[in-house]
Amino acid sequence: MSKNIFFENKGPFLFNDLFSNQKLKNKKKIFDIRNLKEASSNDLTFLDNIDYSNYARLTKASFCLTTEKLKSELPKSCTAVIVKNVLFELCNVTRKLYPNADLDRPDVSLKTPKKTDFLKVRFSNNVLIGKNCKIGKNTFIGNNTVIEHDVRIGDNCIIGSNIVIRNSLIGDSVVIQDGCKIGLKGFGFIPLKGKNLRFPHIGKVLIKKNVEIGANCTIDRGSIDNTVIGENTFLDNQVHVAHNVRIGKNCMIAGQVGFAGSSDIGDNVSIGGQAGVSGHLKIGSNVKIGGGSGVVKDVEDGTVVMGYPAIPLKDFIRNSKK
Amino acid sequence: MSKNIFFENKGPFLFNDLFSNQKLKNKKKIFDIRNLKEASSNDLTFLDNIDYSNYARLTKASFCLTTEKLKSELPKSCTAVIVKNVLFELCNVTRKLYPNADLDRPDVSLKTPKKTDFLKVRFSNNVLIGKNCKIGKNTFIGNNTVIEHDVRIGDNCIIGSNIVIRNSLIGDSVVIQDGCKIGLKGFGFIPLKGKNLRFPHIGKVLIKKNVEIGANCTIDRGSIDNTVIGENTFLDNQVHVAHNVRIGKNCMIAGQVGFAGSSDIGDNVSIGGQAGVSGHLKIGSNVKIGGGSGVVKDVEDGTVVMGYPAIPLKDFIRNSKK
Amino acid sequence: MSKNIFFENKGPFLFNDLFSNQKLKNKKKIFDIRNLKEASSNDLTFLDNIDYSNYARLTKASFCLTTEKLKSELPKSCTAVIVKNVLFELCNVTRKLYPNADLDRPDVSLKTPKKTDFLKVRFSNNVLIGKNCKIGKNTFIGNNTVIEHDVRIGDNCIIGSNIVIRNSLIGDSVVIQDGCKIGLKGFGFIPLKGKNLRFPHIGKVLIKKNVEIGANCTIDRGSIDNTVIGENTFLDNQVHVAHNVRIGKNCMIAGQVGFAGSSDIGDNVSIGGQAGVSGHLKIGSNVKIGGGSGVVKDVEDGTVVMGYPAIPLKDFIRNSKK
Repeated sequence: MSKNIFFENKGPFLFNDLFSNQKLKNKKKIFDIRNLKEASSNDLTFLDNIDYSNYARLTKASFCLTTEKLKSELPKSCTAVIVKNVLFELCNVTRKLYPNADLDRPDVSLKTPKKTDFLKVRFSNNVLIGKNCKIGKNTFIGNNTVIEHDVRIGDNCIIGSNIVIRNSLIGDSVVIQDGCKIGLKGFGFIPLKGKNLRFPHIGKVLIKKNVEIGANCTIDRGSIDNTVIGENTFLDNQVHVAHNVRIGKNCMIAGQVGFAGSSDIGDNVSIGGQAGVSGHLKIGSNVKIGGGSGVVKDVEDGTVVMGYPAIPLKDFIRNSKK
Repeated sequence: MSKNIFFENKGPFLFNDLFSNQKLKNKKKIFDIRNLKEASSNDLTFLDNIDYSNYARLTKASFCLTTEKLKSELPKSCTAVIVKNVLFELCNVTRKLYPNADLDRPDVSLKTPKKTDFLKVRFSNNVLIGKNCKIGKNTFIGNNTVIEHDVRIGDNCIIGSNIVIRNSLIGDSVVIQDGCKIGLKGFGFIPLKGKNLRFPHIGKVLIKKNVEIGANCTIDRGSIDNTVIGENTFLDNQVHVAHNVRIGKNCMIAGQVGFAGSSDIGDNVSIGGQAGVSGHLKIGSNVKIGGGSGVVKDVEDGTVVMGYPAIPLKDFIRNSKK
Repeated sequence: MSKNIFFENKGPFLFNDLFSNQKLKNKKKIFDIRNLKEASSNDLTFLDNIDYSNYARLTKASFCLTTEKLKSELPKSCTAVIVKNVLFELCNVTRKLYPNADLDRPDVSLKTPKKTDFLKVRFSNNVLIGKNCKIGKNTFIGNNTVIEHDVRIGDNCIIGSNIVIRNSLIGDSVVIQDGCKIGLKGFGFIPLKGKNLRFPHIGKVLIKKNVEIGANCTIDRGSIDNTVIGENTFLDNQVHVAHNVRIGKNCMIAGQVGFAGSSDIGDNVSIGGQAGVSGHLKIGSNVKIGGGSGVVKDVEDGTVVMGYPAIPLKDFIRNSKK
């Protein structure tokens, strides 16, 4: 795994320093924090849900924050760090490695782009670009748009006006319409009375080639994982994609649809206007979700669902006729 | 019909050149593409839905893209061009006449307005105006607002800050609150794996006098037709109006309502917050739609509906009590 | 009560001048218009709903716009001004005292901030600040953000990019993400065919300390009252908060939630994505509202509700299994 290009990692830390109040002692270093699937032996990972046990068994991480109950899901190569509240401890340790990822302070490196740095890019008026951005040829950037440091945008893209993009890698031939906010910190925190503890968002937004994003959409970056919009997927206006959502290829997402965090959407999925998908769900490929539906459980490949809670279309029609 | 002021029409084309792979041959020229009702004898039109047969019978178009099944709805004066997929062929031919209407590239004619060109307009800071715009007297334009070429705005309007307006004709005494995106390309395309084919949007947004549009709304322009907001209709914040929607006079549309494409809303209609109206529906006048409802079929004049799918209010209340 | 810092009050007016077409005559002056609870003896108040009779009995106002039916709820110290349509008359009289609060004309006092006026504030590019604004130390203001006259923002805040804030008082350590529109005129008017009569919005938005507001949210200011977001309440992206809504402390409001006007939300309330709360409701503390729900009546403390219309969770689950 490559290093995090958007956030400074203050590590590595000695395990004993990161977890000084744990009984467990270990002199190994922790370099980064990654999910079960992507972690290497230098990394800490986490497991707080039995649904991810298939990934747990195969993880290469050396350490895993988990509970007494779930520790048996881990391979011998991975040391379980037993805690009561996995997300709370994960939040604390991530804040130590990445102290600047909990809040989106405006990028102080922003400047009016020099034509000589972006020879084949067409900038409209009052564009601001951060350091180390790469923008491909024949790409347009609209008025009053802000592209923060290290963002990459491919060739032949059209990025509209009044847009903010940060912590994002964007492929070729992508269209982003006016007013979108891409790559902001998601809605993740440990609720504490008086002062919530914000969860650092060290992930990115990945937008694959030929994607279109409608006006005034919001796509939050991932917390530990990334948020992904697959190739040739089109989103209509005012869609909200929360942190860690993964949307596959060739999907059609109509206006005002909302995705709660960490759901996984297959390929060739079509979703009608104003539908909502709850968090941590798996929606298969070739699924159709009717407009206004509320999806609250997993949907298998090829299913057509509708309603609130969403049920197979034939059941919905039968119920409506009662 | 006047010519399209927002998009360059590359026509006229000879029928035989536009449809070189059709068996049908004809030496007539096609000047433009219009709907059944508005087409003149110089135009191509299209018919793909039996619901529009009353317009079909009266069309003045010389040519009509349609199917074998629907061709009998056309008058003798109109030559049927038989295709399998009307929208696909319409998309292709529209792209030939209007090659620049499928994507919203930023307007390169934008400039800081000269006071002498707009003597009685009050511009805030960092406003950008395209060529040939007309803005009426005593109109305010807010900060960082972008008004692209050929847009017309009437007298006594208040256009807020951080707004983008293109391809729109706006009447007198209209209020548009901050963050709106008006006249952008709608969500119309032929789904093709790997690379969808975008439908050109050659229509406009017409906003009639005394209209108010709340903050962060999105109103897409029409594809072949126009999107229309009738006189003295008020929209609250975060409303989404898709392409070709026609909203009548004196309507009240509460926050976060969404309209899918091509629906026709009567006069004096009130719609509660977060309600959704599906595409291609006819909602009569004096209709009331309850907040959060999902309207999926036509609603007759004077009806009160609620629920998902929306049903007459008395039925909804009875069902809720079960 | 302090005077209105955002809108010029043209008063005081003699009662007889304000209500020249009333039979009732009185030589007292009216200085301001306030709700039943906050009015002093110099003020006019209004009562048009029996639900507010407990406040009516204790009001200190000298005059109250009300109906024949409700006048008996008022104390002897308060003279009832009997009208047919309370809101219509309230609208008219408020327009006389505050002739500039019915529309949000762009603030002409906006300027690029002088560093010397805001020594410890970090401004990004193209920020505009109105006269008399106060911004606390270590606060960031993002790019292209507009902060209109007399707004106050506390210490250690992060205000993102492409934001508009007016008529608002914002506490310490508040985070407002990109694209929000805060303090705009709400959706309040007297419907009149051809030309609606806008209700003046003389209230503020109060955002208490440690609040977070997600991207592209809209929070309208109050009409006569204020709109309030309580301490340590977090809102996700694309939330709409209408005029006069009061949200308590430590609430979690997920993406695309909408609040209609004048509802009162308790403390420690959590609301799932895309849920809607109708107007003039009282939602208790420690309430949980499921995602996508439509709340149409009051909810008692500690209740978990879901569905459309929202009902107690156990009933919703039972109904879904039918």
